[in-house]
Amino acid sequence: MVPPSKLMRGRSIDNNNAINLYNFGTSLPSHVTRLQVKVDNFQDPLKINNFGKTVNHELEKRRFTQDGYVVGQNFLVRLYELDIHEKASLEALLNYTQETGLNLFQSSGLRVEGFGVSKEMNSRNLIWVIGRMQVEVDSYPSWGDIVQVETWCSGLTKHCLTCSSRLTDANTGTKIMRVDSEFVMINEKTRRLSRIPEEIKASGDPYVKDYLDPPLSVDDKLRKLQKLDEDKADYILRGIKPLWFDLDPNQHVNNVKYISWILEGTPEAVRENYELSAFTLEYRRECGRNSVLQSLSGASNEVPNEYYHLLRLENGNEVARARTLWRKSSKIECNSMN
Amino acid sequence: MVPPSKLMRGRSIDNNNAINLYNFGTSLPSHVTRLQVKVDNFQDPLKINNFGKTVNHELEKRRFTQDGYVVGQNFLVRLYELDIHEKASLEALLNYTQETGLNLFQSSGLRVEGFGVSKEMNSRNLIWVIGRMQVEVDSYPSWGDIVQVETWCSGLTKHCLTCSSRLTDANTGTKIMRVDSEFVMINEKTRRLSRIPEEIKASGDPYVKDYLDPPLSVDDKLRKLQKLDEDKADYILRGIKPLWFDLDPNQHVNNVKYISWILEGTPEAVRENYELSAFTLEYRRECGRNSVLQSLSGASNEVPNEYYHLLRLENGNEVARARTLWRKSSKIECNSMN
Repeated sequence: MVPPSKLMRGRSIDNNNAINLYNFGTSLPSHVTRLQVKVDNFQDPLKINNFGKTVNHELEKRRFTQDGYVVGQNFLVRLYELDIHEKASLEALLNYTQETGLNLFQSSGLRVEGFGVSKEMNSRNLIWVIGRMQVEVDSYPSWGDIVQVETWCSGLTKHCLTCSSRLTDANTGTKIMRVDSEFVMINEKTRRLSRIPEEIKASGDPYVKDYLDPPLSVDDKLRKLQKLDEDKADYILRGIKPLWFDLDPNQHVNNVKYISWILEGTPEAVRENYELSAFTLEYRRECGRNSVLQSLSGASNEVPNEYYHLLRLENGNEVARARTLWRKSSKIECNSMN
Repeated sequence: MVPPSKLMRGRSIDNNNAINLYNFGTSLPSHVTRLQVKVDNFQDPLKINNFGKTVNHELEKRRFTQDGYVVGQNFLVRLYELDIHEKASLEALLNYTQETGLNLFQSSGLRVEGFGVSKEMNSRNLIWVIGRMQVEVDSYPSWGDIVQVETWCSGLTKHCLTCSSRLTDANTGTKIMRVDSEFVMINEKTRRLSRIPEEIKASGDPYVKDYLDPPLSVDDKLRKLQKLDEDKADYILRGIKPLWFDLDPNQHVNNVKYISWILEGTPEAVRENYELSAFTLEYRRECGRNSVLQSLSGASNEVPNEYYHLLRLENGNEVARARTLWRKSSKIECNSMN
């Protein structure tokens, strides 16, 4: 086993050292007063993905800590990722998390022969699909902020695998978001749920780590999300169709898009004046390019600023159910204080 | 005037130098055999945006070359940016270009008091809006590829400002895409077109550079895009509505979304078997959250694999017109060779 790569950095304002570096062949102007030094382990360049490409570039570099059990990756918030509150949209933050999660599954951190994409799973036609997602948002970053995402496997039972991500502002350490996603196993041909076979579970167990925080505590009441009945819905948005660019290479809708549709089906006054502080989502059904959906939402009777949601096909088949919790938008708060 | 930042890099496999660097205070393992050295000009750290944030992070670092007249930025293609051809979507590539263009306008490369966002423009309520975009695509990158975008001002007349971008694969130098965008000036209050005032043009002239390639040659026939008549349309997609996340902080639809809608209104067999090799788009009207649109397309009678497009509001008002040129998808080509 090749150990994971290590990155180390050093820095100096010693002009003598600058002269040493000058000898490397770099032409330095006389006014340089600071040096940044980065050291790579040449024997083990970071693998960027399962196509075996390597990265020597100064961006979005993956780190593997805890002996390769945690994938860390930085994302710079781009202007087109902002929503009307001038903050990174939830969709953007979940996309970052998805990218890191896929790298955890597919990168060399979890070996190809091992847990992520095993021969054993292939021979049984088993694949992982997302079943449930639980998210808490502390703050939303702005344009130019750098979001550090760390993702690891935090749980494994015979029914599901949990992956956890923690997002923080890489400059300030401010907490941004916490995501726990549960993956279940289905048969690729029949699309039916499968128990995780004992051999696969055993080969996965060593990867599960109580790193950083344990998974969010499971409240039984929350685990069983109630289904929103149509007659209790305050708002129904009809005729939602996936766009061409919402489809992934498997021609399925990217699961992050479900969240966008659920938010789209929330009353405009909520989206405009509030920001999402937490949600739980259960995926019930895949959808593809010809699906036409409806997004229903209704205010909770019990908790203030809580909503229940149902995403369904036009024939009534359930695609996802969700619960969202909102707080006053920090932009609105700011404006009303001025 | 503060000179733009310079970045220089050096590299060595000389173990003596490693020892020199070790003295900087970094703990190096004994098996390190390569060093990467990066030198920043301490007096002028790179500004990341007009909020004055600086970046010391190893990602998506902006470079200013040609004395600050060109902004360069790298983007790593993320998995969720792929389309069904397993290549970065056009939408993703145009978003990269937009991000770099905004940095050209807003970064310290074009001073705040100068050309991009001048006091003079503010006092006259003048703003830049995009009027026309001309794109040529050589190849589409894959997951994990690093796209280098370089953007500069390539032309300025009393009617419009042209910004040009060239996208290449940062590892191989392969050409990816070329974009020329024309910006026109409108009055923010009346939304009417304005000539570019002589003083503003004069202050902008020094920024215009014949860098890399000159703007795409202007073919008069192409300049005047014909409007697609409804009775010549082969395909009409109705009921397109912007989603919440399509809106920017000004509550307008991000202009890249127009391209997505135009592609969405192209027959499915075209999108599925072909990839876009070039397009020209003229923006006619802004749209917002309550707009409902139609996307029309029709095959050209003159050029094979060429289509004309019209994006309009349901009341018939024109939003954009476009011309697209397609070639057999490289994925399809590949599959048919196997």
